[in-house]
Amino acid sequence: MSKKVVQTNARVEEVYNLFVKHMKSFLEEADLNHEEYTNFVMWADRLGREGELPLFADVFFESHVLRAMYTDKPGTQPSLLGPYFIEGSPLIESQAGKPIELTQRPDEAGELFYFKGNVSNVDGEPLENAKVEMWQNDASGKYSAFDSDAPRYNLRGHFYTDENGDFEVKTIVPLPYSIPDQGPTGEFLDYMGQHPMRPAHLHFKFDAEGHETLITQVFFEGDEWLESDVADGVRLDLLTTLEDKGTHKESSLNFVMRKE
Amino acid sequence: MSKKVVQTNARVEEVYNLFVKHMKSFLEEADLNHEEYTNFVMWADRLGREGELPLFADVFFESHVLRAMYTDKPGTQPSLLGPYFIEGSPLIESQAGKPIELTQRPDEAGELFYFKGNVSNVDGEPLENAKVEMWQNDASGKYSAFDSDAPRYNLRGHFYTDENGDFEVKTIVPLPYSIPDQGPTGEFLDYMGQHPMRPAHLHFKFDAEGHETLITQVFFEGDEWLESDVADGVRLDLLTTLEDKGTHKESSLNFVMRKE
Repeated sequence: MSKKVVQTNARVEEVYNLFVKHMKSFLEEADLNHEEYTNFVMWADRLGREGELPLFADVFFESHVLRAMYTDKPGTQPSLLGPYFIEGSPLIESQAGKPIELTQRPDEAGELFYFKGNVSNVDGEPLENAKVEMWQNDASGKYSAFDSDAPRYNLRGHFYTDENGDFEVKTIVPLPYSIPDQGPTGEFLDYMGQHPMRPAHLHFKFDAEGHETLITQVFFEGDEWLESDVADGVRLDLLTTLEDKGTHKESSLNFVMRKE
Repeated sequence: MSKKVVQTNARVEEVYNLFVKHMKSFLEEADLNHEEYTNFVMWADRLGREGELPLFADVFFESHVLRAMYTDKPGTQPSLLGPYFIEGSPLIESQAGKPIELTQRPDEAGELFYFKGNVSNVDGEPLENAKVEMWQNDASGKYSAFDSDAPRYNLRGHFYTDENGDFEVKTIVPLPYSIPDQGPTGEFLDYMGQHPMRPAHLHFKFDAEGHETLITQVFFEGDEWLESDVADGVRLDLLTTLEDKGTHKESSLNFVMRKE
């Protein structure tokens, strides 16, 4: 027997028992045979060893978790955090009258883009000094700290809303991109006949005292992958228009946080 | 988009869709919050990277798969294949009138043990020339090819039943043992307040033409871990008695295969 001090966790036990109960219903309905089980486990082992488990879970399950939690609730719908969030992004100080500039290289490629947001709550109160964490991919469709050779916090940063709950960010237009599709996750996509593309999006995480953290994404009307997003992250209230202003693009969206 | 040729697999899609359906019921009932989801994914990532996914799946899910498939069917109940099966065990030739000797070291430690089996089918017909694959742990509780420094196929082998469906094996008594409990699987056991022990058992895999492959285990009455086997592998018809014959131990069990 284990010599470690055993500290049980009633919530883990509760969730596991519910998981087993629903897995049994699944097994009965799917009528899985032993060979199918074995094939599944060998595939999952490769998925795990190659470090693709968070990718797979976030792409194929996180949206189900979020829909189960939020679909009928007021406020902005959450979307997946995804596997590309990292802690520790730099604080970007705002300068009066100027948009915040998301951390970027001096020669950052891509289309110049201004995004305006407003953060309020379900009672219609604007939220001053709400923390806004933002991250996105670059003009090669890559995220810093992952498959990119950009600095670790490139196109990542956090800042705070003004007294009206407003913020404005100067950045570049994000691009649609393919999730990694050459490993076990790609095999699964092939089996499902599903392409690996996500529509272009900005990632946001909002924190404000007395409110539920809001993790979500912003998408752009007209994107060819909106309807078939591999990660099922698109919600109607997360869509905005990418307006062409000649020298740059511009978009805006309001975000509504739930009270705790 | 992927440049690979996409070959969909309708069965994978069917099973995945059923999985999602039952996962949704699970998520609704468990009321999982986003932090719990994130903690789960981080744990699962470590499980996968450390190569413990097959261990975890076999210990915590394989029995549910098997129970869902077989509980109400005639014939010997299957038990888990487990993570310690390997392909390619040596053929052990039988010599008339002598028990088969399971592959072992000249100085193999452990109690001398003779196991007699009979293989028939659900119609009561003895199965001649059925292939019997057998594997077990050694006197240190370890499986060759895994945590042991024994030769790769030590205490592993395959052979064939005689004209009456009988076989007799000379081996050593297997021991109860602890599944690996120092990694993410061990963390889960701690949360669940579950010890990591399995009762002593022999592993068998039977193949006979026109019959379903039977993968099962044999357990011994009186073993202290029978009731609380971490892998839930024990079934009443898989229990036998370990008889003390002074110089050695002896057991027997009949196995009944299902027709295809």
